[in-house]
Formats: sequence, C-alpha cells, structure tokens
Amino acid sequence: MNIALDAMGGDHAPEAIVAGAVEAARIYGVTVSLVGKPDVIEAELKKYDTKGLDLPIVPASQVIEMDDKPAAAVRAKSDSSMVVGCKLVKRNEAQAFVSAGNTGGALAAGILHIGRIKGILRPALIGPFPTLKGACMILDIGANADVRPEHIQQFAIMGTIYARDVIGIARPTVRILSNGEEAGKGNQLVIDSFKLLEQTPSINFEGNIESKEIPTGLADVVVTDGFTGNIFVKTAETTARLMNQVITEEVKKSPLAVVGALLARKSLRRVRERMDDSHYGGAVLLGLSSVVIVAHGRSNAFAIRHAIRVAKQAVDQDLLTKIQRGIAAIEHDHPVHESASAH
Amino acid sequence: MNIALDAMGGDHAPEAIVAGAVEAARIYGVTVSLVGKPDVIEAELKKYDTKGLDLPIVPASQVIEMDDKPAAAVRAKSDSSMVVGCKLVKRNEAQAFVSAGNTGGALAAGILHIGRIKGILRPALIGPFPTLKGACMILDIGANADVRPEHIQQFAIMGTIYARDVIGIARPTVRILSNGEEAGKGNQLVIDSFKLLEQTPSINFEGNIESKEIPTGLADVVVTDGFTGNIFVKTAETTARLMNQVITEEVKKSPLAVVGALLARKSLRRVRERMDDSHYGGAVLLGLSSVVIVAHGRSNAFAIRHAIRVAKQAVDQDLLTKIQRGIAAIEHDHPVHESASAH
Repeated sequence: MNIALDAMGGDHAPEAIVAGAVEAARIYGVTVSLVGKPDVIEAELKKYDTKGLDLPIVPASQVIEMDDKPAAAVRAKSDSSMVVGCKLVKRNEAQAFVSAGNTGGALAAGILHIGRIKGILRPALIGPFPTLKGACMILDIGANADVRPEHIQQFAIMGTIYARDVIGIARPTVRILSNGEEAGKGNQLVIDSFKLLEQTPSINFEGNIESKEIPTGLADVVVTDGFTGNIFVKTAETTARLMNQVITEEVKKSPLAVVGALLARKSLRRVRERMDDSHYGGAVLLGLSSVVIVAHGRSNAFAIRHAIRVAKQAVDQDLLTKIQRGIAAIEHDHPVHESASAH
Repeated sequence: MNIALDAMGGDHAPEAIVAGAVEAARIYGVTVSLVGKPDVIEAELKKYDTKGLDLPIVPASQVIEMDDKPAAAVRAKSDSSMVVGCKLVKRNEAQAFVSAGNTGGALAAGILHIGRIKGILRPALIGPFPTLKGACMILDIGANADVRPEHIQQFAIMGTIYARDVIGIARPTVRILSNGEEAGKGNQLVIDSFKLLEQTPSINFEGNIESKEIPTGLADVVVTDGFTGNIFVKTAETTARLMNQVITEEVKKSPLAVVGALLARKSLRRVRERMDDSHYGGAVLLGLSSVVIVAHGRSNAFAIRHAIRVAKQAVDQDLLTKIQRGIAAIEHDHPVHESASAH
C-alpha cells in the first residue's frame, strides 16, 4: 500500500512529518510517498536509517501556507504538495493522502482534485473528542457551514461506518448535538434532522445530545453541521488551553506550588495524555472517492505516524466501498437529490 | 428599590437564596421580596439577624422544578414562585426579578407575563465568559434557537448598552461568533448579520471572532444565535469540569501528587476564582419590559447577592429606557418589521 504524505504541511514540517513517515514505514510496512521539495525532504531523510523502507519522494515545488486562502491557493498553486498529493491518489498511484497543512486547503484540494463518492451530497470532516470512556467521533467539524437534514443523515451513516470499521466499535450509537436532551429541543435543522435520523435503519440513533454529555461517552458518533461542530471542537480546545495557562500562571507565583507541581508531574503528564487525541490520527475527510486525512497543524511525529495508521486501516477496511453501499441503501429507500431538496 | 427574588429556584434553594437575599439587603440597602412558600422562607429567615432589613415574603404555593417542561409548567403552575415573581414586576410592585431556577421556565414566564420592550423582536439571554482580561458578555446564550440577522443586530445593540451601563466598559467592542476570523467566513446567518452589523452606527463592530479568541479578551460583547451561544457556553463549562475531574482522578492515584496538590492548594484556589463567574450575577434576559436575571442553577449565596446587585445596577442605570432608545434609533434609520423580513 502506498500512502501519499504532504511533507511540507504543518507547524513542525518537514522535520516531524518525515520522522513520522519513517516510523510508519517501519512499523506498518507501508510505502509512504513524501510529497514536497526534494532537497528539503532528502536532507530530513538522511537523519534516519531508512534501509529496507519504501519512502519515495514525489516532487512538488510549491507549498500552501497556513495563512493562505484555501480555495484561491489551491487554484494558484497547482504544483503545491497538497494538489500534487491529491492528484496522486486520484490517479490511484497512492491509496490515501495525509496532510497536516492548512485544513481548508486540504478540503478544497480534496473536493476539487479527488471528487466525491457517488451519492454523497457533501463530504464532511470527522474528528475524535476525548471522553471518560475513550473517544467519540464528531462530524462535521468544519467542512460545511450550512447543511440540510439530508446532509446530516449522510453524516450519520458515514460516521457509523467509520466508527465501526476504522475505530472498531461494534454497534456505534449516534446522537445529534443540540441545546437540550429532549426530543423537540434544538434549532430547526436539529428538529428536522432528528425526524430523518429516526427513519434511517442503518444507524443506531439515540436522539439529542448536549455538549455536556459528550465527555461522559454517551454517544460513539455525534452529528452536527460544520459551523456548530467547528465551534464545539475549538471551544473545548481553547478552554483546556486557557485552564492550563491559568494553572501555570498561578503555580509560578508561589515557590511552594512549584514544588507541588513537581511532585505531581507524573500525574499531570497522564492528564495531558488522556486529554491528547494525537493517536487518533486527526480528522478524516469522509465522502471523497479517496481516503484523505487532515492531521492537526501541531502534529508531531507520533501524530503523523498514527494518521498514516488510520489511513492504512481505512484502506484495509475498504471504507470507501462501505460508505458508497451505505449511501446507496438510503438512496434506494428514500431517494434524495441535491436539486429536489434545495430551498 | 424592590427586587423580587424566586426563593424556591436553584440547586441550593431555599437556603442559599435566602442567605443571598439577606446579604444583598444588608450590603446594597434594597428591599428583597422573597417569593415562595411562606413557611419555608420564614424558617430560613430565622437563621439570620434581619433587624432593619426589608425582606417581605410574597406567597407562592407552587414551584417550577428543574426538570419541568418550561412552557407547559408556566401555564400549569400559575401560582409558582416564577409566575408570581414576574407578575410582581409587571404590576411594578417590584423593579426587577431574579431567579436561579429552571432557565427555560424563567424565559417562558418572563416573555408570557412581562412582555417585550416596544420594538424588540426577540429577548435574548446575555451572560459573562471569563477572559484573561476580565469577562466578555455573550448573547444570545439560549433564548432563541433560530434567529435572523435583524435579531442579531438588536442583540448587538442591547449587548453594547448592557456592557457599557451595567458592566462599565466605556466603548464596548462587538464581534460575531464565527468559524473563522476573516470577513466572509461563517454560515449564512453570520455572513448576512455581518453586513447588517457593519451598517449599525451605534455599535463598535469589529468583525468575526473565533471561540479561541474569546478568552484572550479580544471583544467585550460577542453576538450569536441562541443555539450556537448555548453550545459554546456549555462546551466551555463542560471542558473545564472534565479537566478538573481528570486532574483529581490522576492526582489521587499517587500519594506524592496528593502532597503536591496540597502544596499548590492556594494557587489552585486562585485558578478556581479566576475561572468563576459568579460575581457577574448570572445571565440577564434583555429585551423584556422589566429587568429579569437568570442566575445559574448552582448559585450559592455569593452568586445570588451579586445577581441582586446586577439587578439593582440595571434599574439604577435605567437600562430598559436606554435599550428602548437604542432600538428606536435603528428602527428610525432602517425600519425592520417581523412580518416583512420573515422568510
């Protein structure tokens, strides 16, 4: 199997990206095609013993930067690592594409240069959220700011298949993010989507979920529109970071507290590990006709290695065919067409 | 000044509520009308020296419970402390109403029994969010799940007046919660509201804000629909609680870490104080023709005292007249009518 990896994308590129590629090639036995500037990648590869590993370089002279405007950058930079990587999988020279670069850029490049699975109305970003029981998968966390109930229904189906076949949860439960637990609570989109989800036999729909119940592990899959999902994920990240910052500030003011923090440092490390989601490999862009993983911008080698593992698992499990079948089954029961349902 | 207080509402009612009322009557010199079951309130009042304080009891035989369905409960329980309290302010026998009970119930009772300020399309809940510089005021945090741009515009005006005249910020900046900082980012509601906010001269609008920028203190007022606002506030609360829980669990596993936490306990208390918003007195239902404060369900006496302080300040500052003038000014420039803009 060949996984195309954007060697130039991410806060710690190219060092952490190439390091993660070397680890992944060694541990999972996959080919990792490093897409980017050949001299830069070669310099990084020299740091490792890569004998017996398959790490070809695929040249791309441009880079979509973190602050580039996604759609414009994808059009303007046709020889960027993101565009070249997406084209590799489109031509089936690689089976998946992984990038820790500009999320919007990866989305735009994926949609433009790879395209959707037949029947998928809107690809969606699925990502993990840490819970007391493990993790819950949330989608859409940012691909679609405005959606309709039939999009939410497809998110629920894609999320169920992903949680089952990639994460390994036997019969994933699905809930829709709302501002109240009871049926009937929510905005109009939630209320309309709720009815459609109830009528979807291929998912295990259990109703609304409030954000306060997500960390308890009440649901395996949570569906929402990409605007709300993005705000949910960013708010949680931000609050955790704010608390860490306030704790550090206050502890530093007192020498006694500094000693206390030293005594508790192993516990604090375990806290960080439990709140860390990097072994989930980042977010996956579901609904494209190739596997595309959007790793976090701050990915280290460990996170990149796991993003490659998730990509391999998605390919091994034939995720795309399963999604296509899941969507086709719904189409068959209740035909839904983009144009017919527009309003 | 007479503040009506729901003596029966909240997780720690009636003890904490009556205790907060006694403190407020003593410190701020206001009359606090305790609305609820007379025998219960009398038993609580006996615990304090209330000589010279004005703490009349207003009988109400029913209670809207935390798990009651708001609208139905308000109709069914016409002698509940919430309904009786709202009717008191409606008849102008009290100048403000404070409740730590069922938020939906307080909303429904306020809208049904007090009514809106002339020109207000939708009353909104405004609440504080802790930032590194103090607090930012967010609205709507739960009164309206679906809104239109002209509602968001009114929220911005009401929020500006509240931040200026009750919180004391000279020229409050306003931003709209979105999934990206740049103009043009957001769902359709954000994009349309952005244009309207730009054309509103009475506010200091500075564009979009991502949730990650709210804790830095970038904006004094953040406007959003009640669905997104509610999820934002609950997600932040939940993440903070989850982190506290994970830290406690991990520290307890190690005797050394327990000693460390003891050494750092003063610092940890300061962390809690900084993350605590109880001195902001809870959320305020803006847009009704009386001042209504919805304190947090978990309010202690300190939080109730401050909720009464906020109510007094809103009355002292003649908040309602200022809101009415602010809305009238917009109506004059760009007439907006509920029916004309419905779609």
